[in-house]
Amino acid sequence: MRFTTFSDRAARMVRHPGFYKFAVLVAVSGGGAVAYADARSDPSSEYAQAGPKKKLVVLGTGWAGTSFLKNLDTSLYDVRVVSPRNYFAFTPLLPSVTCGTVEPRSIVEPIRNIMRKKTGPIRFSEAECYNIDPTNKKVLCRSTIGTNLDGNGEFELDYDYLVVALGARPNTFNTPGVSEHCHFLKEVEDAQRIRRSVMNCFEKASLPNLNEEERKKNLHFVVIGGGPTGVEFAAELHDFVQEDLSKLYPNALELVKISLIEAGEHILTMFDKRITQFAEEKFRRDGIDVKTNFKVVKVSGDAITMINSSTGEVNVPYGMAVWSTGIGTRPIILDLMKQINQGNRRVLATDEWLRVLGCENIYALGDCATIAQRKVMEDISSIFRVADKDNSGTLTVKEIKDVLEDIVERYPQVALYLKTKQMKDFLDLLKESEGDVVKESVELDIERFKKALSQVDSQVKMLPATAQVAAQEGEYLAKCFNKMKFCEENPEGPLRIRGEGRHRFKPFRYRHLGQFAPLGGEQTAAQLPGDWISIGHSSQWLWYSVYASKQVSWRTRFLVVSDWMRRFIFGRDSSCI
Amino acid sequence: MRFTTFSDRAARMVRHPGFYKFAVLVAVSGGGAVAYADARSDPSSEYAQAGPKKKLVVLGTGWAGTSFLKNLDTSLYDVRVVSPRNYFAFTPLLPSVTCGTVEPRSIVEPIRNIMRKKTGPIRFSEAECYNIDPTNKKVLCRSTIGTNLDGNGEFELDYDYLVVALGARPNTFNTPGVSEHCHFLKEVEDAQRIRRSVMNCFEKASLPNLNEEERKKNLHFVVIGGGPTGVEFAAELHDFVQEDLSKLYPNALELVKISLIEAGEHILTMFDKRITQFAEEKFRRDGIDVKTNFKVVKVSGDAITMINSSTGEVNVPYGMAVWSTGIGTRPIILDLMKQINQGNRRVLATDEWLRVLGCENIYALGDCATIAQRKVMEDISSIFRVADKDNSGTLTVKEIKDVLEDIVERYPQVALYLKTKQMKDFLDLLKESEGDVVKESVELDIERFKKALSQVDSQVKMLPATAQVAAQEGEYLAKCFNKMKFCEENPEGPLRIRGEGRHRFKPFRYRHLGQFAPLGGEQTAAQLPGDWISIGHSSQWLWYSVYASKQVSWRTRFLVVSDWMRRFIFGRDSSCI
Repeated sequence: MRFTTFSDRAARMVRHPGFYKFAVLVAVSGGGAVAYADARSDPSSEYAQAGPKKKLVVLGTGWAGTSFLKNLDTSLYDVRVVSPRNYFAFTPLLPSVTCGTVEPRSIVEPIRNIMRKKTGPIRFSEAECYNIDPTNKKVLCRSTIGTNLDGNGEFELDYDYLVVALGARPNTFNTPGVSEHCHFLKEVEDAQRIRRSVMNCFEKASLPNLNEEERKKNLHFVVIGGGPTGVEFAAELHDFVQEDLSKLYPNALELVKISLIEAGEHILTMFDKRITQFAEEKFRRDGIDVKTNFKVVKVSGDAITMINSSTGEVNVPYGMAVWSTGIGTRPIILDLMKQINQGNRRVLATDEWLRVLGCENIYALGDCATIAQRKVMEDISSIFRVADKDNSGTLTVKEIKDVLEDIVERYPQVALYLKTKQMKDFLDLLKESEGDVVKESVELDIERFKKALSQVDSQVKMLPATAQVAAQEGEYLAKCFNKMKFCEENPEGPLRIRGEGRHRFKPFRYRHLGQFAPLGGEQTAAQLPGDWISIGHSSQWLWYSVYASKQVSWRTRFLVVSDWMRRFIFGRDSSCI
Repeated sequence: MRFTTFSDRAARMVRHPGFYKFAVLVAVSGGGAVAYADARSDPSSEYAQAGPKKKLVVLGTGWAGTSFLKNLDTSLYDVRVVSPRNYFAFTPLLPSVTCGTVEPRSIVEPIRNIMRKKTGPIRFSEAECYNIDPTNKKVLCRSTIGTNLDGNGEFELDYDYLVVALGARPNTFNTPGVSEHCHFLKEVEDAQRIRRSVMNCFEKASLPNLNEEERKKNLHFVVIGGGPTGVEFAAELHDFVQEDLSKLYPNALELVKISLIEAGEHILTMFDKRITQFAEEKFRRDGIDVKTNFKVVKVSGDAITMINSSTGEVNVPYGMAVWSTGIGTRPIILDLMKQINQGNRRVLATDEWLRVLGCENIYALGDCATIAQRKVMEDISSIFRVADKDNSGTLTVKEIKDVLEDIVERYPQVALYLKTKQMKDFLDLLKESEGDVVKESVELDIERFKKALSQVDSQVKMLPATAQVAAQEGEYLAKCFNKMKFCEENPEGPLRIRGEGRHRFKPFRYRHLGQFAPLGGEQTAAQLPGDWISIGHSSQWLWYSVYASKQVSWRTRFLVVSDWMRRFIFGRDSSCI
């Protein structure tokens, strides 16, 4: 009751003239918003089992885990959730938290609050899983709460299904000194620490008895990594300094320097070139020192050492450094990989249904795993066999057409390849490989078939490690779990190529909804599907709209929007707490 | 411009029907609000010196220090402020922060923001003063920022005037284990730690593998000290558990226990008996275990040991303990006291003009000092000498009347005594001491004069260690500093009793504006001047109004009010961050 009333009120508020661009979000954020709709009634309900429920253990409450829980029909399973954080954090706003544009509590929602709205009971334990035992189907956990509190913090959980959504850790590439001296920006606590650290640098630089050089060192902020997170943090920090701290620390202002170090040739390489160029130029105008082609090789308490092919090794004194160069695999995942013969891989691999390769009933999603898309060339003889219904040893165009839909579903690279080459169908593919006009009546042997498909695997794509991918994976997997029973009898997936019959579910398919790169000064670059690029103030409003709409609850939506209002009116707070 | 516009808007918002009781605050909070008005133009401006400005060093940015700075005409002095916190915290809302009713950032305001609005420049250093050297007129400070930041964190400041507003520390009465195992509630960080700790207790108690006894222990919250802070925290915690956590931790609810331990016979002894009784009964109904006459003698990681005359020593297992029994003197103040021959006192003593006794040009205010009100009996012969203008050796009633105003101003206990005994004037006093009717024409020798005044010193009152006292002292002292030059030539204080002429300023006089004791469940007890007692929901609204009005800036006012709104609509957040 309380909620409904407020939702209406808040919706009215948000539809206020100032938020007129809010409407856009409906078009843009459709997919992501669905990721947080509660599980709807689906065919599975009639298949609810009578016996004891299967034990479903979920590890992690980040984007993947939370999206999974939100969409799961929890009445079907005995659900246990284990995570060292009892909340979900809206991580895309973490860079805003570092400078107080948004408060940390505005972007977190207690996981128990999310669970409370579910139909079935879920049990949550604030603990860290430190071992996954696929042989005995159990996980070992321990509580990270280290106080005088009583009781054994260690426990084991048995599972029938295990959903691993543990996320990743920052990747230091074993660069010496990074863990000791750099800040990361993955958790809410990281953002809080950065905020305090920024203020400490300003306060330290304002003390008497420091010479100019020392003040300059303390006010040198270095961001390592020119990806979206690093760029957004640099932009936020620049705005914070110019808009707020300049008034409170007028003498410090001219000594402040922000450097952005990138090992590659450009920053924001995952974006369109126009965005990269705009960002680099804007940063140059803003006085942010963008150093591309510089690789950091060592970080000490005093200086950052980096190398560049033309300048060689340089030492740069700094006050604060933020390391944001990418993600690495967590030790517990590495350990699991060894147990299931994935030890030679760098990342945990799953199939296209998010099932971990090499073990049973373990699913992995989000940043802790990647989908190892099966190659067409690996399966080419099986594909030929499946397509060759009359066992003639050759394929007619009709035979190929009959299985093409299943093949495209199973191997999305085929469709991608056709699209990239602007081809209509398989005949065009054949035409390309044979360099000649091909008749409808052609019959292919395996060699010609193989040759025609030989290039398609070049289009196998790795999904990026983003919140969007994780949320979609979570939603997809929850829906599979919801209709597990139903689909066992009524499989809806493509034909099995190596086996018999059909797959239970359609494989996971990612829909890219676009990506933002906030560049500071109320300007954002947006890259939307269909190569639509938008840069500037209008994209900033789009950003506000989308991020407000994607909030996990009405509470956080209210808080984030009121934080933005507060910032517009009063600026950001600079208290060292 | 930005501010003015908002002030109007915010004022409109706050005058909304829901805040109709807001009007009350104008009547109640007049005094305190003035404490934050900026320094107004006063006669001193024409006395602004031409030479180098005198160096004024202010230590501390709590209630006393901030109130002093807000009211000081900073163009008259070379002002340096040193404090380990670069913000002012509205401490009366700290108990609300412990449970997330109000966010920590909503009650803090950067001291540089306050300084920025002053006419003259102020330099602030975030550092801790660790030594005051009254002989050489300097203070030794060091930065508490412990990172890789460069530069010497130690520095000295010379002063012409030193304002010591360092506050107090929690008093453990040397009870073993308190510092190690108990939380205090004096700083913003304390409140944040308590909040995390409460959530940890609930999360720990929700883990598998704990038995009932261990769960109960983890969910036993103990508050030691039945003063306003302890009582308010217990009430806040009870509300948090009942209103919010009960929904998220339904199984934990029946195991939760809140105990309030008080060494005296009753809680809230500084309040009227009716309030004490109401509070004790309300807590009993709420299930808060109020243990009076229990003295805590030891705290270990597992249990709290206390003694009671009837039960003897008892050990109580607990999950979290908050120690809130009063304040003690900081080591730096104890050190100063030794240097200036105050080593035998427990608290730093100042005269009625807030000047530290035994040294020059050092002022102390707030919780770090007390005013040692001069006794009439100590000065009785001097008073007699001053009053006896004709040196006749006897005083006529007229002679007494001539100096009575000055004497009452210098020794406020005289007026207090007359008021307590419901006497009109000195003649009534004389009548009481002589037990007979006294004529107007009476002439008193020193013995009769002494006898008449012999009881008045019983009315010497120590000021309570409250925000209200500190704020008023700060305002008073700032006004003295603003008119220092003017008053040197035009003294406005009472006659000097031991010396010649008049005192430069009127001595500090505290005006008690009332006190609140929030008891939870939207009920507050209020004790207002004139023994007006109000308990219940209406006082809660008065509390909201007064606390909103007393906020140090429009920003914090906006934030505190929106925090309250957020709590009403969405409840409190339980994320462990």
